Amino acid sequence: MARIKVHVFLKPGVLDVQGKAVEGALQGLGWSGVSDARVGKLIEFDFDGEGDPAAEAKTMCEQLLANTVIESYRIEIA
Amino acid sequence: MARIKVHVFLKPGVLDVQGKAVEGALQGLGWSGVSDARVGKLIEFDFDGEGDPAAEAKTMCEQLLANTVIESYRIEIA
Repeated sequence: MARIKVHVFLKPGVLDVQGKAVEGALQGLGWSGVSDARVGKLIEFDFDGEGDPAAEAKTMCEQLLANTVIESYRIEIA
Repeated sequence: MARIKVHVFLKPGVLDVQGKAVEGALQGLGWSGVSDARVGKLIEFDFDGEGDPAAEAKTMCEQLLANTVIESYRIEIA
């Protein structure tokens, strides 16, 4: 059984409103040195099945977990 | 300048409805071996300021980035 971690981020160039909000809030709290904040998703699950976990995870991302038009993803197998 | 990554997850025992939805959707697409799915947030930003980045990041989490009643966080400095 493998523990699969998928990081999903908006692609560079796509406006990240959550990131902008976090950046503004941290700056407002006094951390003026904060810049280029991005907020993404982290999806973790156990996978117990046939096939290579990395290849299966890639298919899951393409089909469901990431909107590949505006999001990129990175897969980690633990 | 440091690149700070903060992973925010619901604590174990707190119902993760997003995780349940992802698990159900993946199982519905045929990956019956998927279990214990959790969905968290990943917040990344550059930090250029006085003080230790790790200590500052911890304060940011406590004050803004995580709701410590129901969420736990992990900080990575790159």
